[in-house]
Amino acid sequence: MNAPFDEIASAFRKYESFCVMSHHRPDGDAYGSQLAVALCLRELGKEVVVWNEDGLLPKFAFLPHSELIHAPAEESERRSFDCLVAVDCSTFLRLGRPLRKLGEVKRTLNLDHHHTNERYGNVVHIADAPATGELLYELFAATDLPFTRAMAECLFVAISTDTGSFQYRGTSARTYEIAADLVRRGADVARLSQACYDTQPLRRTQLLREVLNDLQLSAGDRVATSAVSLAQAAALGLQPGDTEDIINHLRAIDTVQVAAFFEEMRVVSSGQPAVRTSLRSKSEAYDVSAICAQFGGGGHRLAAGARIGGTLAEVRERVTAAIHAALGAA
Amino acid sequence: MNAPFDEIASAFRKYESFCVMSHHRPDGDAYGSQLAVALCLRELGKEVVVWNEDGLLPKFAFLPHSELIHAPAEESERRSFDCLVAVDCSTFLRLGRPLRKLGEVKRTLNLDHHHTNERYGNVVHIADAPATGELLYELFAATDLPFTRAMAECLFVAISTDTGSFQYRGTSARTYEIAADLVRRGADVARLSQACYDTQPLRRTQLLREVLNDLQLSAGDRVATSAVSLAQAAALGLQPGDTEDIINHLRAIDTVQVAAFFEEMRVVSSGQPAVRTSLRSKSEAYDVSAICAQFGGGGHRLAAGARIGGTLAEVRERVTAAIHAALGAA
Repeated sequence: MNAPFDEIASAFRKYESFCVMSHHRPDGDAYGSQLAVALCLRELGKEVVVWNEDGLLPKFAFLPHSELIHAPAEESERRSFDCLVAVDCSTFLRLGRPLRKLGEVKRTLNLDHHHTNERYGNVVHIADAPATGELLYELFAATDLPFTRAMAECLFVAISTDTGSFQYRGTSARTYEIAADLVRRGADVARLSQACYDTQPLRRTQLLREVLNDLQLSAGDRVATSAVSLAQAAALGLQPGDTEDIINHLRAIDTVQVAAFFEEMRVVSSGQPAVRTSLRSKSEAYDVSAICAQFGGGGHRLAAGARIGGTLAEVRERVTAAIHAALGAA
Repeated sequence: MNAPFDEIASAFRKYESFCVMSHHRPDGDAYGSQLAVALCLRELGKEVVVWNEDGLLPKFAFLPHSELIHAPAEESERRSFDCLVAVDCSTFLRLGRPLRKLGEVKRTLNLDHHHTNERYGNVVHIADAPATGELLYELFAATDLPFTRAMAECLFVAISTDTGSFQYRGTSARTYEIAADLVRRGADVARLSQACYDTQPLRRTQLLREVLNDLQLSAGDRVATSAVSLAQAAALGLQPGDTEDIINHLRAIDTVQVAAFFEEMRVVSSGQPAVRTSLRSKSEAYDVSAICAQFGGGGHRLAAGARIGGTLAEVRERVTAAIHAALGAA
């Protein structure tokens, strides 16, 4: 059962101090939803803190009032709030390291669109929608909560990025209607879209070049793999989030059914090398979450991942073999 | 003065034989608009021919009834029609070589969204819209003309591709409302978007690799250039349209203000080498149509082009110098 919008709006009005959080490795839907909620609460005159494990990634500095987003200082005390609002975060633990700085909260609101959401918290609303931003739009539009132009811009970014610019399955007639209303409320489509999709740091373009130079096709061009080493990442000066979506360039090749991207990870305390592995499938017939599960990972049928022990070359070889086996069996 | 929709609908009903044409080097808006008009006319029981100089580019074979699109045979006689419907074509001559096969027509309809349209023809409607597909939507929605699911899919592709997936300036609240209605009429967003944006032949990915390997930055990373030679094009097996949009990868680098892409052209009868040059600007302050005008080309402030005599290296050097001069002067 989803909490009705009135109950959420009442909580926004009733309490005085709020902490708004979302998942680590944040994307446009995480940040956009955090800021939309925070800006609404500020309009109501509330005390609001916006925490994210990764602070503000520079790529999203264009979001209205993005300066509100930060990671709590390592040395700070735990801080208590009347109300924790968690947005776009399917499990409580994915809220990440900021949880260590969270003291007592009277009420936890869990507003999300992942159907795998664990339904943690006291007031839970998990929407059947392509973005948490779409749920928040419905909340703001259906209640008498404030709904400013800056909030509209944050929600536009949330919805646009989580639908791959209005392209992915799940993008509905309602999604486009909401976008229309957000534009009417002042969202600047061209400026926001250019910031989201058309403003890459040079190192991202250089990364794409290296990824394409390393492209390997196999199984009759049905499998595409590429990898980036720690040495390459250091030479390019890669930042967190830079490798995001790079795998789409492999997946986009028309003959490719399964794409795999391998990213060498910093050697941690265990002293063992490890590789962050992302898999994408184009077809329900090839379930990449099952392949990732063989290596201790998980995800969805068409998009999954795993962190796998071993060198870059070893992991690439083992995962590619597993993909070939899956294709052969299908 | 734009012809009212009723006048266009009356012409669709009154005449019996139609030829539907659009510009050469067709894009999604050209093809999508051609097919939407053709399918409407077929629903009305009319005799319809759909001509394009480039025939059907394989990339767009996914469009409903794309098999209707063809180039008239070189050896065929001129053919007369009651009515010529030209869509998304700003000048009569851009209809290209099929004009040589066009006999008498009683009436020419000119339906377009380029504000530079020369207003050729007897029934002219030039919409202030980001795509000709948007104009056709308004036509079909406002009149009692047939409006099938297949037509909705063609219009979705027309609008989506001409707005860069609902991102470019010009994408309005109305554009999103129209998309919502097209989805309600049966357009399959995910399937069409994947076909448009996520299905590249391998040679396109290889072309991108070569373009990135050739990337040159200058003027403090404010200018990005890249080039593709005839030898590269031959080695990759490039097809018409393959270089389309590649320049966006140069333009997307955050420091870049002006991007230039150079494509060596087949040596024609004159025996002189020539280079197809595309320029993009990110700022109204740098007018690339003025730069292209120096070389006999033209276009818009932010997107322009020219065909320039000379070798690839010569043209690249001359145009880059002209860009540097424009940046220095701004």
